[in-house]
Formats: sequence, structure tokens, C-alpha cells
Amino acid sequence: MKKFELACPAPLPAWDQVLLAHGGGGKLSQQLVEKIFLPEFLNPELAARHDGAVVRLGGSRLAFTTDSYVVRPLIFPGGCIGDLAVYGTVNDLAMCGARPLYLSAGFILEEGLPMETLQTVVVSMGEAARRAGVALVTGDTKVVDKGKGDGMFITTAGIGVVEAPAEIVPASVQPGDAVILSGDLGSHGVAVLSVREGLEFDAPVRSDAAPLWEPVEALLKAGIEVHCLRDLTRGGLASALNEIASARGAGMRIEEAAVPVTDAVRGACEILGLDPLYVANEGRFTAFVPESQAGRAVEILRAVPVSAGAARIGRVVAECSGPVLLRSRIGGTRVLDMLSGEQLPRIC
Amino acid sequence: MKKFELACPAPLPAWDQVLLAHGGGGKLSQQLVEKIFLPEFLNPELAARHDGAVVRLGGSRLAFTTDSYVVRPLIFPGGCIGDLAVYGTVNDLAMCGARPLYLSAGFILEEGLPMETLQTVVVSMGEAARRAGVALVTGDTKVVDKGKGDGMFITTAGIGVVEAPAEIVPASVQPGDAVILSGDLGSHGVAVLSVREGLEFDAPVRSDAAPLWEPVEALLKAGIEVHCLRDLTRGGLASALNEIASARGAGMRIEEAAVPVTDAVRGACEILGLDPLYVANEGRFTAFVPESQAGRAVEILRAVPVSAGAARIGRVVAECSGPVLLRSRIGGTRVLDMLSGEQLPRIC
Repeated sequence: MKKFELACPAPLPAWDQVLLAHGGGGKLSQQLVEKIFLPEFLNPELAARHDGAVVRLGGSRLAFTTDSYVVRPLIFPGGCIGDLAVYGTVNDLAMCGARPLYLSAGFILEEGLPMETLQTVVVSMGEAARRAGVALVTGDTKVVDKGKGDGMFITTAGIGVVEAPAEIVPASVQPGDAVILSGDLGSHGVAVLSVREGLEFDAPVRSDAAPLWEPVEALLKAGIEVHCLRDLTRGGLASALNEIASARGAGMRIEEAAVPVTDAVRGACEILGLDPLYVANEGRFTAFVPESQAGRAVEILRAVPVSAGAARIGRVVAECSGPVLLRSRIGGTRVLDMLSGEQLPRIC
Repeated sequence: MKKFELACPAPLPAWDQVLLAHGGGGKLSQQLVEKIFLPEFLNPELAARHDGAVVRLGGSRLAFTTDSYVVRPLIFPGGCIGDLAVYGTVNDLAMCGARPLYLSAGFILEEGLPMETLQTVVVSMGEAARRAGVALVTGDTKVVDKGKGDGMFITTAGIGVVEAPAEIVPASVQPGDAVILSGDLGSHGVAVLSVREGLEFDAPVRSDAAPLWEPVEALLKAGIEVHCLRDLTRGGLASALNEIASARGAGMRIEEAAVPVTDAVRGACEILGLDPLYVANEGRFTAFVPESQAGRAVEILRAVPVSAGAARIGRVVAECSGPVLLRSRIGGTRVLDMLSGEQLPRIC
């Protein structure tokens, strides 16, 4: 009977079917969240539009987050779906200013998956969890018929305790804030895509997948007033900056020459027809801090191995929902828009 | 390089591929957990082998759990994958003696899924969350290529605050404890399977999917000394009893005549060749309580609508890892074993 209550549903979005691009982290993903999910689940935590929710429980502020991983192939240079499922989720906690503590994992396995592949992935998850300092305390496994899955999907959820004194959310970003990037861009996406496309490079590009609480903790311990943090996964730097600009209602000015990209990644991106600013990373983030603390924040990040390549790349400007503008190496300026489509399906 | 550290891995289980039965909640599922997952993630919370983990955080005891949902079809009499994804996870929290508070949801959508189906499911999840008194505070959506998924998979994780004074785990079960069942068995499995097999009954059987914190809270508030709780999902009553008997190292004696099964479910099970004791439920649980409190516990449960059909069905006996024995209606006794294979694939 319940289903008949839907006789007068909310208007459907323009697309009547789910497209690959709805999962790409771009405009269509945003639309899906806004039109389908937010109206039904609206609450202040979800409305904050951050990587995780921060909830009060007893005397503590807890961060809680989840991500599903559908990367193809399951194993790639520098990692596998298991590392991603650990690092991706602990990094979302870190982006809330929270120390990651506990993980859950739900496995959806396709009938016929070699047991050895499962074991390789599970061993990698164990190593990744130890490296990130979290305990995987609860899990579930389901198996679907051959042809109804794709080897293995993993969904992890994580709990952390917020150690940041102030709220680390897009709304805390201030005009004038410096935009800091924690290292060079694009190696995760290039590593995955090069296997998928059968490309071989002289020096193979390895995924940057890594846990990011250590550099965040270093900033907080040094008393840096961190306004917002965001890891640069699906959709890369460009999408992350646009999401924050749009959630905060501000513009940004980014200097392309200040954004580190290795020659190997730049070369691979040229061959693959990709823009490194849109390519997914699994061990990189941006931090928004007051202009006056930017120099010190970069120094602190550079002292931590995973963010040794940190650099200041731009600033926030006071324009209500203004665009993210990129000043290119040759001096021109262009809008760094959000992708509407899907550049790299199933990259994480 | 990391992968080469696997040169001397732990011995592989007897099966070299994942089978559907590895997801069935029976012996093979148990083997997968013991051989692949536990060695890598061993910690006290996972070793407790309960429906969720209980962790201390600040001054509180939190319950944390996850489940993936792959039910086919997505919509069935009495519910859909969205209700299941809410109730299944809040019920795992309730089975830890915890009040469910927050949920996360990870969606894995197959390209081409009708947007209307997604909206129906999301609206049902919203209703289910309100009924269960939980807030869905964080989520993620991924899309996989057509033919690499099956419409929609949902993985939810949940956080609750433990309100039970003592630990509700298999290890707390005592010889002599009464085994209480919260209501009639089998309607979820029969509802799903009848759609899948195209069967029509005069009175269609509807899934029992429902949130279970209310009856658990009633037991706790009345001061009933609850030793263990377990909801009866994959593998049904028989598997739940076997899991607890094996984790506790005890035997059980169950009276078949005391186990409520409706005529509709019994008839459908006969047609489908199923044993109701092994069929999945999504709104039923067993409680293990001291013999002296059993009568009062049943009364308390009967006063709550979702457990109005509660009955005492047997007792725990002091036999180290003894079997679960069922005394049939005609007086014979048989071992109620765990299924090794898969009775009902993709039932939740």
C-alpha cells in the first residue's frame, strides 16, 4: 500500500535514467543529491554538504562518513580497491578535522571472484588500516550472481573524534583566505587509467593513495586556524574548489603556475586527453586558512612526508557564488568550471 | 611493490572462487569470515562475532554496524531495498542494546536505472528512517556501467548509543536461559521469493520489515536481564541459534510446536520447498533471558505491536558447543543444523 502514497511525487529531474555521469562527482552528481536525496533526508548535518557529518554524542563531537568504491581494475600501480576503501574514508574524516578511529566495511562480491583476489584486497585493507591508525570493527559480505556485479565493490563507513576547535566546513571559509594544496595532482587517476587503457610509461605513475590525518593533525596542533579542508577525489581539484565556492557563496582566484603537476602525469594526461586539474587524487587535499597564517601552514605541511609538496595556489575573493578563475601560465584567465559529464568513470 | 609481500600468504580456503553460498549466511559465509577477514582485522570488537561492534568513545558506549543490501527484486510486497537498508541496520544496533541514532548510506547504481525507481526507494528510506527515529546524515553515490551491477545496491552503516546496562553478546548467554522469539517466521523471505518466482497467493504474504528498537527498549526499561539478542535475517532462526550456540559454546533445545508460523507462510514454504526455520525475516528477533524472567519478558514483548506474537520457544543447555536440537510436533528430535549452502540468494 505504501507505494501508492507516491501518487504525487516531487518532480523528477530532467534525466529519466541514471547515467554514468551521475556518479562522476560533477554537475549531474550534484543535481542527483539536490533533487533526489536532500529533499527526503534533509537535516543540518546533510545540509552542511561536507565530506562527512559532525554529530554530538555525549560530550564528544563525532565525525561520521561513508563512501562506496567501485574502481576498475581492482588492483593498479600503487594500490588496490582495499587501500582506497580505507584511505578514502579516513580522509573524509580527516577533512572534518577528526582523528579517524573506527571503520566498517560492506563487501559486495560477484560470484566467481577468485578467492586470491579477495585475499589480496583484504590483506591490503589490513595494512592500510594499520597505517591509518584505525580499527576495522564491523563488516558484512554479500554475494551477487555472476554478471550482476563487477568483481568486488566495497563500502566503508568511518567514525572519528573531532579535534579541531572550530567548525571545518565550507561555511567557515572567509574572503581573503589562502588556498593551499598539499601536493602534486593527478597520479591516482593516471595510474588507474593507464592500466585500464593498457598504456605503458617508462616510469609508471603510481597512485598517491595515502592517509591524510597526519598533516591535518600537524596544522591543528600548530594552532593554524583551519577554515575548511577537502580531499581531491572524483572530479579533482577543480570540482572540490567549485563545490566549496558554491556552498560558501564565494569566488576563488587560482594561479595555474603554482599548482604542482609532475612531468610524468602531465605527459600521460596529454596522451589521455585529460586535464590534471580534474583528475582524481587519493592522497591530496586543499586547506583554506587565513592569509596571515598561509606561509606557516605551508611550512608545517611540507614537514610531513605525505604533504611534502604543499604549495599556496590561490585565494578566496568576496563574490557571492562567484566563479573559480584560473590564471594560466601564459597570463590569460579562464573559468575553472565544474564538469557536467564524466571524465573518468569508476576511478574510486 | 606492496603486492609482492604476499609471496607467502595464509593458506587459501578450499574454494578458489567466491560462490553465491558465501553470501548466504550459512557455513560457507562463516568460513569466509574466519579464513579471510578475521585473520587480517582481528580486534576484540570483531572477535565478539555479534551483529555490531560496541566501542567506547569519551564517556559513551557506541554501537557501530554495517550491512550491504542486494535484494532482488528491488520492490516487493511490504517493502523495498530502501526500507531494508534502514531497518536491517537499525535492527543490528538494537540487537547490541543500542538506541539507533545516525545512519550513512552508500548507493551503487547501475547505469540505466529508472530515476523513478531510485526516487521510490529514497522516499521509502526517508519514511523508514523517520519511523525508526534515526537521521540519515551522510551518504555517497557511485554509478557503474550497464551490465556491471543490478539496478541498485545500498550499504548502510549505523551508530547508536548502548542503553543496556550489561553486555548483550553471545558470551553472556547462560545455560538455563529461555529462548524467546518475537513473532511468526518467514514472511520476508516468502514475500520476496513469491515475486521472484511469479507466484500468486490468495492473501499475498507481505514482508515483516520493521524497526526493532521499541521492543528491545521495552525489555531494558522493565529491567529484564537481557543476555543476548539476534535478529533473524539471512539463514533465519536456525542460523541465528546456531551462530549463538557456537559462539557461546552451548547447546539449545527448541520446541517446534512453540514456533509461530502463519498458515499462509507455511503453505507458501511447502510450494517453494523451503523450511520456515531457515527463511529470512526483517522484523523478528530472538532474546535470551534468565528462565525466571521469561514469562514477564514475553508479556512485555506482546504489549509492543511489532512483537505482539512473541513466544517462548526453548532453552539453552550446558553442552559445550552442543547442537541445537528441535523437538518436532510429532515428538521426534532432530539436529537443527546450519545450512552449508544457499537457500535463498539475495534475500536482503
